[in-house]
Order: sequence, then C-alpha cells, then structure tokens
Amino acid sequence: MNDVKLYCFAQSGNAYKAALMLSQIGARWEPVFVDFFNGETRSAPYRSTVNEMGEVPVLIDGDVKLSQTGAILTYLAGKSGKFGGGDERAKLEVLRWILFDNHKFTSYLATYRFFHAFTKDPDKGTMEFLRGRMTGALGIVDKHLTGQPFVIGSAPTIADFSMCGYLYFPPEEFGIDIAADYPSIGAWLGRIKALPGWKHPYDMMPGHPLPPR
Amino acid sequence: MNDVKLYCFAQSGNAYKAALMLSQIGARWEPVFVDFFNGETRSAPYRSTVNEMGEVPVLIDGDVKLSQTGAILTYLAGKSGKFGGGDERAKLEVLRWILFDNHKFTSYLATYRFFHAFTKDPDKGTMEFLRGRMTGALGIVDKHLTGQPFVIGSAPTIADFSMCGYLYFPPEEFGIDIAADYPSIGAWLGRIKALPGWKHPYDMMPGHPLPPR
Repeated sequence: MNDVKLYCFAQSGNAYKAALMLSQIGARWEPVFVDFFNGETRSAPYRSTVNEMGEVPVLIDGDVKLSQTGAILTYLAGKSGKFGGGDERAKLEVLRWILFDNHKFTSYLATYRFFHAFTKDPDKGTMEFLRGRMTGALGIVDKHLTGQPFVIGSAPTIADFSMCGYLYFPPEEFGIDIAADYPSIGAWLGRIKALPGWKHPYDMMPGHPLPPR
Repeated sequence: MNDVKLYCFAQSGNAYKAALMLSQIGARWEPVFVDFFNGETRSAPYRSTVNEMGEVPVLIDGDVKLSQTGAILTYLAGKSGKFGGGDERAKLEVLRWILFDNHKFTSYLATYRFFHAFTKDPDKGTMEFLRGRMTGALGIVDKHLTGQPFVIGSAPTIADFSMCGYLYFPPEEFGIDIAADYPSIGAWLGRIKALPGWKHPYDMMPGHPLPPR
C-alpha cells in the first residue's frame, strides 16, 4: 500500500492503533496533523468534510475514507492479508476484543488519561468513576493475557494493536504505572514492542511535545 | 436457526440488540436469565464458565459461544445472510457505526441511564460528564439520520439494531425524552418499531419489572 494518509496527532492512542498497523504491514503512509487540542475535531469544517463523528483517526486510501480504528484495522487486515486472525472463528474473537477495547479502554482508560494528563483539576467523582471502570477492564485483560502471549493466541493480531493503543504513553500521564501494576499486560506490551519496526506513538505521529498553552 | 440460547436480562440494552436481531432473522431462541442486579456477572463462576469479560449478553449456538453484541450481530448476519449490509464497503460502514455505538452509546448513554434509573444518589459530577458525552453522541446520530431512513441507508442493518439497543427504554429511566429531543432519532426508532415482529425489550427478555430490593 502506498500514498495512504492518516489524520492523526501524537497524543491519540486511537490514531496510534492505525499507525502501528500501517507500519507493521509495511504500508507507505503519511500523517495529516489534526490540531485536536485547539478544537479542530469539534469544528464544523472537520465534521462536514473529514469526519461527521468528530474523531481521529481517519484513513484515506485512494477513494476509501474510513473512521473508527476498529473499522480501519479490519480494512487494513483484509487488504494486506495480515494480522486479521485466520479463520472466521478467529476473526470473531479478534472483533470481540476490539469491541471490548472500544467500550472499556477507549471510553474509560483513555478518558481517564486525557483528564489526568491534559486538563486542569478534573472532577474528582468523574475520575473515581473512570478509574473504577479502567481498573476493572485492566484486571480482565491482565488475567486473559496470563499464559498466552497475544490477545487471541500465539501471534499478534489487530486485537493487540487495538488494545495496546493507549498503553505506551508514559505512567505520569495516567498517574499509575499500568505495565508494572498488571504484569501480564506489561509482558505483553514488551512482546509487541519487540516486533520489527515498532515505534512509540510520540515517534510515529506529529504533535509531540505539546506547545505551551 | 434453532435452539439458540441468549444469556440476558430485560434491562440490558446490549442483550436487546442481540435479541432483536434473533427475532428479526426468525431464529428460534430462548433466554437464559442472568441475575445482573444481584451481581451474577461479577461472580467468579460467571466469569470462569460463561464470560471472562463479565458481561451480558452471551450467545450459544451449538458449539459457538460468543460475547460482545457487535460480534454476535456480525456472526448472526453472516450466518443468516440478513441485515449485514451488502458489499464490503457497506459492511465496513456497518462496523463503523457499531463501534461508534459501543464507544459512545454503550459507555456513556447506557451508563447514564443505569445510574439514573437503577442507583440511588449517583455522583453529580459523573452524571454531568456522562450527560455531556451522551448528548454529544446523540446530536451526531440525529444529524446523521436526518434525510436517511436507516443508519447506513435505505434498509435496516445490524448497525440499527445495535444503536437502538438502549433507546426504547422509557424516558423516565433517562430523565430526558430522547425520541422527542432528537426528532430524527425519534422517527428512526419509529421505523425500526414498525418492522414485523418488533417487540419492546421488556416484552422480549425476562426480569421486568425488577423485584423490590
């Protein structure tokens, strides 16, 4: 794949999921920087011309334009024939964990980090709520990864690329050290990091560090 | 399809998504009641034998056992050849909205309703946070449905069955009247309700009304 564009920014774990997959399948792609922190995704032009859902990432591949990382990952797995998970049963298992990731990690864990790292004085009750949901989900995943190297077995799939999306950001952005507190998750993150060509989100997408605001 | 089992309970919009699809494809299925309000999904036996993710619904079809409604809907669409969305591009659009539903409606709107309807004195800050996310998502969907009858065009798909999952519960469970406040969503809910065999979640799954606690 060549001349693929990905609307993204460095601090977006969702964009990282797609960027990691693009690099792992050897696609030639370039980032289109989205100025999230100055409100670009909430702007009328972004919503009317880039993504009505008001989110990052968006993938452009020829006349294909896709948002939602789970859909982007599924599309890229189909097109490349890589990391999709094999037979139909395996593909459903992959989808099951991508959905879990969207529901639990993206909604709660990513939002917890966002408030902790990028806002001032987040609401205490909301943080407590998000932290409860986040740690519940982390516990489930840590248990799942005990005794198996990747999310659906012995080889990495888009379920891994989806679920690890927010987990390479530094502990200080969360206020907790996830890799240390959940050892099976920590070991699994190490295995993904060891894949040839792996890069940290801050080295793969534009916009880090944030300018002073 | 015959002898399908669905682990569910009446108040679960997620279970309703699967139940609605099962009835729309004419499957013969029976509910297995899960006593969510007394902690069954959080129990060790449920997590070790039914669903490690600790959630409802779970579908049993012969030797296939699946959780995550998005995966269940995708499986049932594949097996029945109905409501899946046609070609690959349409299937990706369906998946895109199922993911949006999981991220935005299930995480925020469903949780807002849960706290409002089924807990005492929910935390004000958390409710404000959830309400902001919920109304943002409802606005996006209302706009999307203005001028097109169903989520990905002129015919219903599993994206519709997924996204409507929590929206037939009565307004008092939310404290707002979603169908009235978002007219395009209201009209769309009317179109789904008009499908032959449609039933309300409280008439389709066991456990309503809740016993006094």
